[in-house]
This record gives sequence, structure tokens and C-alpha cells, in this order.
Amino acid sequence: MIEDKTIEWIRQGNFGHSRMIDQTVIPYEYKKIDIKTTDEMYNAIKTMIVRGAPAIGIAGAHGVVLAAIEEKDNSNFNSFKAAIQKKAQYIQSSRPTAVNLKWAIDKQLEILDNFNNIDETISNLIENAIKLENEDIEINKKIGDFGSEIIPKGAGILTHCNAGRLATVGYGTALGVIRSAYKKDNTIKVFADETRPRGQGARLTTYELTLDNIDTTLITDGMGAYFMKQGKIDVVVVGADRIALNGDSANKIGTYMVAIAAKYHNIPFYIAAPKSTIDPDIKTGDEIVIELRGKQEVTIVNDKPVCTDKVNVINPSFDVTPNELIAGIITEYGIFKPSEIQKLFD
Amino acid sequence: MIEDKTIEWIRQGNFGHSRMIDQTVIPYEYKKIDIKTTDEMYNAIKTMIVRGAPAIGIAGAHGVVLAAIEEKDNSNFNSFKAAIQKKAQYIQSSRPTAVNLKWAIDKQLEILDNFNNIDETISNLIENAIKLENEDIEINKKIGDFGSEIIPKGAGILTHCNAGRLATVGYGTALGVIRSAYKKDNTIKVFADETRPRGQGARLTTYELTLDNIDTTLITDGMGAYFMKQGKIDVVVVGADRIALNGDSANKIGTYMVAIAAKYHNIPFYIAAPKSTIDPDIKTGDEIVIELRGKQEVTIVNDKPVCTDKVNVINPSFDVTPNELIAGIITEYGIFKPSEIQKLFD
Repeated sequence: MIEDKTIEWIRQGNFGHSRMIDQTVIPYEYKKIDIKTTDEMYNAIKTMIVRGAPAIGIAGAHGVVLAAIEEKDNSNFNSFKAAIQKKAQYIQSSRPTAVNLKWAIDKQLEILDNFNNIDETISNLIENAIKLENEDIEINKKIGDFGSEIIPKGAGILTHCNAGRLATVGYGTALGVIRSAYKKDNTIKVFADETRPRGQGARLTTYELTLDNIDTTLITDGMGAYFMKQGKIDVVVVGADRIALNGDSANKIGTYMVAIAAKYHNIPFYIAAPKSTIDPDIKTGDEIVIELRGKQEVTIVNDKPVCTDKVNVINPSFDVTPNELIAGIITEYGIFKPSEIQKLFD
Repeated sequence: MIEDKTIEWIRQGNFGHSRMIDQTVIPYEYKKIDIKTTDEMYNAIKTMIVRGAPAIGIAGAHGVVLAAIEEKDNSNFNSFKAAIQKKAQYIQSSRPTAVNLKWAIDKQLEILDNFNNIDETISNLIENAIKLENEDIEINKKIGDFGSEIIPKGAGILTHCNAGRLATVGYGTALGVIRSAYKKDNTIKVFADETRPRGQGARLTTYELTLDNIDTTLITDGMGAYFMKQGKIDVVVVGADRIALNGDSANKIGTYMVAIAAKYHNIPFYIAAPKSTIDPDIKTGDEIVIELRGKQEVTIVNDKPVCTDKVNVINPSFDVTPNELIAGIITEYGIFKPSEIQKLFD
């Protein structure tokens, strides 16, 4: 089991830097890298060295601290603040879909309004970043505990992509539900979609879960319905990158097909995500911006093409599962029907 | 455009051998290999040097000829016949799901009943194999012409796996429909599922269609529903490996999820396949044997693992799409509703 934080602020004197697991080299290598500038943080998020909505939230929070450190020699507080805001916007532009990035950056930017001294501000940004890290783990454990109640005894659980420890600071959201369920019942079986094009299910989810000795079967993204039909899947649990107020949920591309297949087989489909993944500014999933990524994620696997180079590629990184396909949204405040999550903002 | 037969009998004197495109090396290489023994044929089918239900049918027919040539020095016709039947059974065991293999082998074994002279039998087996090759192309062109009528003007067409020229002797079944539609309307657009684990969509379908200048976009198996929701897909056309008398259709793993997603979006889902793919001996898809293949097809891509080696894998090579999800089955005799195909055997 990996017990350390997957992303954390490393203090050095009054400042420090971000340290994160390089998720692009798992399962071949388990290594951490230090991120010391806002440019490095932008690239780490963009190239998915750090990925997973809650984890990139923390990366954004760290990015604001790095911006503040870079700008610490500004002649006055207002120019210091303006420079940080600009760099925060730059970091936020690294990936458009996961709202946690904006949420955590905003949490940090609020700090700027409470102080007018540069050193004190930096110190508080660091404190707040570490607080967000710790809260993320606590939130995930609550999600896990609430969610474990919807996992039947001996269940087969399908998950898509990686909403695990690696997608968060620790414990995981969808995989947090699985971890909490496993503590009560070690006979559960997980089916992990490989999650093309980037293979987070194959690379990360199977890595995490087998380290925890949870029975895990890797399947390709086209196999879910086959196993549903066979009666091997009792419940689907996935994470989310942004949830609209009506419960429509954006998650990794492929999730929507799984949700449709689950509905067809009358299998409950759950989203596990912290409140910070709900975007109170949007009413429906139609408003969620879907990131389009490069062609090579699809055409190149393990450094070699898998197709002719003459083909077109469109590579949406996420899709939106409409609320009607979602049995419940598992949060740190309990499990809500999609139509009920507005309550969290009353 | 590839105009030559993808698999054909090469006459040499009174005998000869089978020649086929090696489908495992496309798109990196386009080469043909000669198959001269029943063992080589068994392995060629098993390892998917030749794949695609109609193509492996012809491979089976060629296999029977090879068996006859190997057994030509038998002392009497009965032992010659018995030895061929045994080898035919062996070849048929190479892959269990596609019924065309059994169908074509049976067509050849019928020849054995009509003769009692070894040389004459071999000569007739060769004639019959070549006849089956030629008929396959003609059948596919008929399927294409019937099928082209269900393709709307400027349609977006989703296909899964490769039911193309490469899966047949020529022209293709599902891709035959696309080829015939393209002749009438060159504004159609094809979306090709990559079709993990073996990537026949990525490797073969995009290769074939781009050679014919048909607009082709490669997508991962999890993306279909996203593009359906976007209104980019007007119709789905796929091949089949075995069709039960009630219209339930086995095809490459992942097809069933596509069919469910199509139904959810009210997009018609068609099967294109020759009558020889319909198995008159089975009533429903529940009776179709699904081949389970090796773990490494899922875990290794381009000679490198995509996951931890501690994970379990189950690798069903096909799934069954129930008749209720199928708008029509396009055959060389016309387009039938699933409930109507029994008529073909009246």
C-alpha cells in the first residue's frame, strides 16, 4: 500500500516546492519529481505527470504558492497580487475540464484578499495548500465510508479510468469507495477498464489495487457490457471531473458508454466525488467544456504507431454522463440523487 | 485500393498452396505468405495471420485441400477420406466462434462424398475452393449494394473491428456497404473504433479505407457514445462472426456496447454478413461459444506491458448483440429484420 501523499508541499525554510508522483511512468517506475516553478507546474498538469481532478486541484494550489514565491520581490503588495493572479490564470488554463483546478486556485486567491504583507501571504498560502492536502484525504475517507454502503456483499464492481489514490492526495474517490468496501468484505472483485487512450485504468488502477491485494481484473473498454450481461458486475463506481448542478457528470472519455450499458442491464451507476467537483456556476452538462487532446495519444502506444498515419483523429478527453443514468453521487456529505446535489449549495 | 484477393489458392501443377495477406503486420508491412500444410493453416488461423469470418472460411476450405494433398498417397479412398475429415476437424478447432470456418469446411467435405478417386477429388476440392473465393467477392458486392441504401446522404458511419476487404476475399461486408455507399456519395464519413485488444479497427480498417480515400476518423472504443451524442453518427454498420436463427449476432468484443449506445441515441445498428454467417443449428445467441484468448493480447501493446503483471485478465474475443438492438441484417439476399432471417432457410 502507498501511504504517503501522492502530491505534497515540501517546506524548505520559509518557502519550499511541490513534490508529486510522476504518474506517466507508472507501472514501470515509481518516482517523485519536484516542481519548483509555475512553468513546471503548468507542464506537469498539461502533460499529466499529475492527473485526477482532486490531485490537479492541489497542483493548482501549489502553483499559486510557486507564483507567490516567484513574485516575492515585487515592490508592492498590489503588483505582487496582480502578478500571482495572472500566473494563476495561466496555470488554470492547463486543463479546462476538471473544475477542482479552478476551485483550489480560487481558494488560494481568496487568501490574497486577507493580507497585505508579502511574507505573511506566502506563509498563509503554504499553510492553506497543506490544509487542502490533508482535507482531501479526509474527504476521500468520508466518501469511501458513505460509498461502501452501496457495495453489495461479494460484489463485482466496474470502474473506469483511475479515481484512486493517485488521482487524489490519498485514498481515492471511486477507489476510496472500493477500499472502504474491501475493509468490510475482502471478497469483492474489481473490473478495471483499461481506459484508452492514456490507459489510466491499465496503468494506474490495476497498480494501486493489486498493491492493496484487492482482486482486480483488467478489461478493455469494449468489454464492460459483456461482463454485465454475464452477471459479473453488480455496481459501477467512477470519479468525476466536473458535475453540473443538475447532476450531469463529466468524467474520462468512455464513462458515458459504461453508464448507458449499466442502465441497459439495470446495474446502478455511481459517481464518487468531493463537493469541490460540483460546479455551482453551471446548470447542465451541456455547459461543460470538453478538453480535446493530441492525436498521438490515440495513434502511438509504447512509442510505436497502432494505425496508418493517414487517418484523422479526434481525441476528446472527457464525456458527460447525463443525470438520468446516475443512481447516486457519493460525496463527503453523503450520497445524493443527481436532482438533490443543489442542496449542497443552499 | 487493394484489388487482389486477400486469400487465394495458388495452383502449381495439379496441386498448389494457399497464399494470404499477413494481417498481423499491417499497417507496418504489406506482405503475403504461403501456407503449404494443415499445421501451418491451423496456426495461421489461430494466430490471426488470417482473420475475419469470411476469410477464415476460405482458409478452412484451403485447409481441406492441403489435408487432401498431404493424404494423397493413402492406399485407398476411405482412409484418404477419413484422414482428411480428421485434419478438417483439427483446422476447425483453431477458432470456435466464427461459423463460416465450419461452413466452408463442410462445403469441402461434401465433395468427398461425390467422388471415389483421389486425384479427381483433389482437383475438385481445388476447384471448389476457388469457386468459394470468387463467390465471396460477389456476395460482398451484393451486400454492399443492398446495404448502401440504408446509408443517408453525407452520413457519419460508425464501424467496429474490421469487416472489410481484409476480413474477406475482397470488398468486405460492413466495409463493403461503406464502399458501395461511397461510390454514390463521397461525402460520407467513417468513424472507426480502434477495437482493443488486437486493434483491427486501428490497424486494418483505417488502412483499408484511407487507401480508398474514404474520410476515416480513428476513435477509441470508449468514444462512440460521445460522437453519437454530438450527432456525428447516423448509422452503425458492423460485421458478424455467427448469427443465431433469432438474429442474435456474435461479433468482435465491444460490438455489444456500441449497439446499446446506438439504441440509447436512436441510431440504427446494422449487421452486414453473408448467409453463411447464419448458423441454422442454433436458435439464440446464448448457444454461441465465445472464444477466450490469451492475457497478453490485453497486457502487451507493441511489445511492452501496459499494466502491472499482477493483474488478472479475462479476454473474451467476441460478444453477442441481442436481436432487439439490431435494425437489420444486410445479406446478399437483401436486408432482413432479425426476426425474418429464418426465411433464408425455408
